[in-house]
Amino acid sequence: MAKKITHETALLGLTAGIRKAKELNQRSTLSVVDEGGHLIASIRVDDAAFGTIEIAQNKAYTAAAFRQPTAAWMDVVQPGAALYGLERSCSRPFVVFGGGFPVFDGDSVIGGVGVSGGPVEADEAIANVIVSAIQEK
Amino acid sequence: MAKKITHETALLGLTAGIRKAKELNQRSTLSVVDEGGHLIASIRVDDAAFGTIEIAQNKAYTAAAFRQPTAAWMDVVQPGAALYGLERSCSRPFVVFGGGFPVFDGDSVIGGVGVSGGPVEADEAIANVIVSAIQEK
Amino acid sequence: MAKKITHETALLGLTAGIRKAKELNQRSTLSVVDEGGHLIASIRVDDAAFGTIEIAQNKAYTAAAFRQPTAAWMDVVQPGAALYGLERSCSRPFVVFGGGFPVFDGDSVIGGVGVSGGPVEADEAIANVIVSAIQEK
Amino acid sequence: MAKKITHETALLGLTAGIRKAKELNQRSTLSVVDEGGHLIASIRVDDAAFGTIEIAQNKAYTAAAFRQPTAAWMDVVQPGAALYGLERSCSRPFVVFGGGFPVFDGDSVIGGVGVSGGPVEADEAIANVIVSAIQEK
Repeated sequence: MAKKITHETALLGLTAGIRKAKELNQRSTLSVVDEGGHLIASIRVDDAAFGTIEIAQNKAYTAAAFRQPTAAWMDVVQPGAALYGLERSCSRPFVVFGGGFPVFDGDSVIGGVGVSGGPVEADEAIANVIVSAIQEK
Repeated sequence: MAKKITHETALLGLTAGIRKAKELNQRSTLSVVDEGGHLIASIRVDDAAFGTIEIAQNKAYTAAAFRQPTAAWMDVVQPGAALYGLERSCSRPFVVFGGGFPVFDGDSVIGGVGVSGGPVEADEAIANVIVSAIQEK
Repeated sequence: MAKKITHETALLGLTAGIRKAKELNQRSTLSVVDEGGHLIASIRVDDAAFGTIEIAQNKAYTAAAFRQPTAAWMDVVQPGAALYGLERSCSRPFVVFGGGFPVFDGDSVIGGVGVSGGPVEADEAIANVIVSAIQEK
Repeated sequence: MAKKITHETALLGLTAGIRKAKELNQRSTLSVVDEGGHLIASIRVDDAAFGTIEIAQNKAYTAAAFRQPTAAWMDVVQPGAALYGLERSCSRPFVVFGGGFPVFDGDSVIGGVGVSGGPVEADEAIANVIVSAIQEK
């Protein structure tokens, strides 16, 4: 049976993420959700725009909801592609650009991480640091 | 007067669908709605991601709402096409990719079936098995 | 670590619940959710009104969200009581009348059951049968 | 010009709040919002029910929105009282029971704190600790 992400592990992950955000000079919101997509911890770095809050959470939620990085959907939801409209097919929006990753314990998805605030590459770099910090515990 | 889908028939359809999902090695949510688009029965196969739940229901709902397979709308909702934006034209989202089918009794639509979890082809194969099992009763 | 409710166990619970509903002559919707409040299985008994569908799901969701029977909140949300307005304090409504119960594995809540369709006493009797059938597995 | 709550101060406040929650043996969600009601930081203590997440945030939001403790509204929103229905008068719900407090810098409100998970008295005790820790910085 897979373990759960404790609040201490989540905070430890966010602290590592904040460090990475500063290193990349990004002002971002960083979020961690559990297996069911429910928020464990979120932190908005100073001067991050408030528009980043829900995007970070929805990225983490989307990663947990489908057990895939959010960017995995980008091609397939385009006009003419197989799942056009997926991102708005449910009452709560899914995010299909990069910055959300599932968190694994072995083969099981035990949560998700989402970062919003910078270019997709920076969001993903920060999110990866958080995921690694959580998975290493 | 067209017949109604009983809950026993719906369960029988879902059981056939679960068998097909296992055969195809898909972890999916399978839903059956009535003529009014209202849920009769839904089942989420073990290990299906929770993101599939509402999509399956919205596919079944969409199929009942328009009496068409969900995939029938895909071309016409594309950018530049005649019904661009149809999938978000109402408070509840419609799904315009495959996996939802109406259920007929003769010429009358008596409900809808929706499946979400795998590639569109697998979702449609599973949904077709459910529709057939219901229509054969 | 607590176990998960499989779809087979959920169906077995719903089958026991349908039997109880017939015995009580009630037309109800019966729902089972996982630990995160996400639907595993739902069935609407023949001739149950469609208004019962979401109530049953929201009862199961509320029981999982707070790990309490839904009826536990009834007194405390009344005008003048300590948590007046709790049922509408979040974007998704909570149900505070009877018919929703958490499902336990030992001390851990692993899901919720909700039933809607009859008088509160009947809803609770049916829900209890479902909870017992699931917990006995 | 009033100061802003930095993310470091918010985390420091939440850490003090977690300590208080453990002392009171409560499993709660603790949230801090800025002057605009937008989330700065949130943490869900291990084993806190997921139903507490949005309530904690809505308490902090309500405190910032009206620059009052959430409990200040309780009497006046009762049936027959002057602002009956206030808690549902906007698209986002307000919370009118205790557990939310504004954060001051001198006479200016610079944010809000919300706690959900235990009895109102415990939520308020934890929230007060967070507010003090933030205001002392």
